[in-house]
Amino acid sequence: MTILGTGSAVPAPGRFSAGQVLETHNKSFLIDCADGTQHQFTKYGVHSSRLSHIFISHLHGDHCFGIIPLISTMSMANHTNDIYIHSHPDLEKVLKPMIDYFCFDLEFKIFFEPFNPLENSVIYEDRGLTVSTIPLVHTMPTAGFLFKEKEGEPHLNKETLDFYNVPLSLYPDIKKGADFITENGTIIPNSRLVTPPTKPKSFAYCSDTRYTERIIPIIEGADCLYHEATYCSDDLVKAKARLHSTAAEAATIASKASVKQLVIGHYSKRYDDLTPLLTEAKSIFPDTILSYDGMRVDF
Amino acid sequence: MTILGTGSAVPAPGRFSAGQVLETHNKSFLIDCADGTQHQFTKYGVHSSRLSHIFISHLHGDHCFGIIPLISTMSMANHTNDIYIHSHPDLEKVLKPMIDYFCFDLEFKIFFEPFNPLENSVIYEDRGLTVSTIPLVHTMPTAGFLFKEKEGEPHLNKETLDFYNVPLSLYPDIKKGADFITENGTIIPNSRLVTPPTKPKSFAYCSDTRYTERIIPIIEGADCLYHEATYCSDDLVKAKARLHSTAAEAATIASKASVKQLVIGHYSKRYDDLTPLLTEAKSIFPDTILSYDGMRVDF
Repeated sequence: MTILGTGSAVPAPGRFSAGQVLETHNKSFLIDCADGTQHQFTKYGVHSSRLSHIFISHLHGDHCFGIIPLISTMSMANHTNDIYIHSHPDLEKVLKPMIDYFCFDLEFKIFFEPFNPLENSVIYEDRGLTVSTIPLVHTMPTAGFLFKEKEGEPHLNKETLDFYNVPLSLYPDIKKGADFITENGTIIPNSRLVTPPTKPKSFAYCSDTRYTERIIPIIEGADCLYHEATYCSDDLVKAKARLHSTAAEAATIASKASVKQLVIGHYSKRYDDLTPLLTEAKSIFPDTILSYDGMRVDF
Repeated sequence: MTILGTGSAVPAPGRFSAGQVLETHNKSFLIDCADGTQHQFTKYGVHSSRLSHIFISHLHGDHCFGIIPLISTMSMANHTNDIYIHSHPDLEKVLKPMIDYFCFDLEFKIFFEPFNPLENSVIYEDRGLTVSTIPLVHTMPTAGFLFKEKEGEPHLNKETLDFYNVPLSLYPDIKKGADFITENGTIIPNSRLVTPPTKPKSFAYCSDTRYTERIIPIIEGADCLYHEATYCSDDLVKAKARLHSTAAEAATIASKASVKQLVIGHYSKRYDDLTPLLTEAKSIFPDTILSYDGMRVDF
């Protein structure tokens, strides 16, 4: 995952607003797309050629103003994949006039895939993963996204297969659970022929949101949780008023949901030094990372 | 003048697309406004508080995608001046749905001031200056802008005025050309009481355009000419096909129009090293400056 922006509504020097690219299974998924996102692609060497799906958490400008410029530039860079924009239904109505005016001669199509941000449901699925919505609590209907790999196939235990001269033609069945019977009738149980599949990984994106424990069952055990931490606890009043979270609250959610790693971001412009946010989060959830523009997170 | 972006349609690393801010007479004027312009304001320490007028040369995204994000951020920064957007008439139709959706609670108003890019006419005037359109030749109706200071009042020659004990109440008339008659009836001619006004300055912005000599009478003698130089002469075929200019062509216009200084920009992404563009322009017009993002030009 590459984090393209860690600022909030008003960007700060060196901090663009929301955007991140998740690269997995030979695909790129863009999550939120603030003004200037295309510049962050260029600056941080993220390629857009494998991008087909854009997920927009909510219709505040700092999460969606960059869509049209990005599409426009992708078009000039000879992009060919169709683009699917998953968002609140209003986005199509708002962007359509701009698309019609500025993007009328694209080599690819743009599809709007509306979802209901108030429901937890699967909004995207392919062979390798699903994306489902995480209803959040903000000043407008907002959803986070849970990217979850599907359970893969078991790995073939080449050593054992070779030892028993198992023909290649049986490999597919063995992957599906079949035992192997040798020429002399000995049954080799499947458990000796394969090793368990790689544990599927998951990533949860929760921005923007007030502290809400309702998301915990959805994000439970995620390998990585990105949770907004617009404020530090000293500014809890502001966080409550504007329906954002503090770093301590983000860490509490991470802890209660037993995630493996917490990445915080979406910092208010008021903070030049972000150390206090990291300190307070780490005191609750030690495996916290302070994101910065251009940061790459592997999990 | 601060140059916010020197890239062309597809931004290059370190080169945002079109935008510049002219600061004069205690006002700021924004000329073109590409995606990410608000970030360039922040990065280069340009304040938007005195901004009221935005001039858009034409409706390609790399000249206007930044308007809504800029306005949105200005609103959050408690901007209060009304904003006037001078552009081709289509812009209002295209931006209106976004303004209605994202900018419904502004403390200031947004007015669209359409102009006809095919005509040379005054589109803005205040006590200190006028702005007029410069019809250009591009793939869509496009106009450059000529910012021209008005002739100021003569400066009072304080030494002479004090010597003859001229009462303060007569200063306004003297500024307008009146002589002074001393108590003994001697006429002191106005030419001894004042020195000539500061010579009014002018700035011409010409982007995007194919080489056209029709602009010469309009920009003649400008103190500063910003002229696009998307390509170097080796790529003249591309320049002609896409209705852009080469650096040599920009310099030829500067020379024929006898401007004082030429600033080139709007470089194609294909050039990492811009030295060849500067070299070919300077060979024709020595007073050429190669602009870069964040450059300040005083004139």
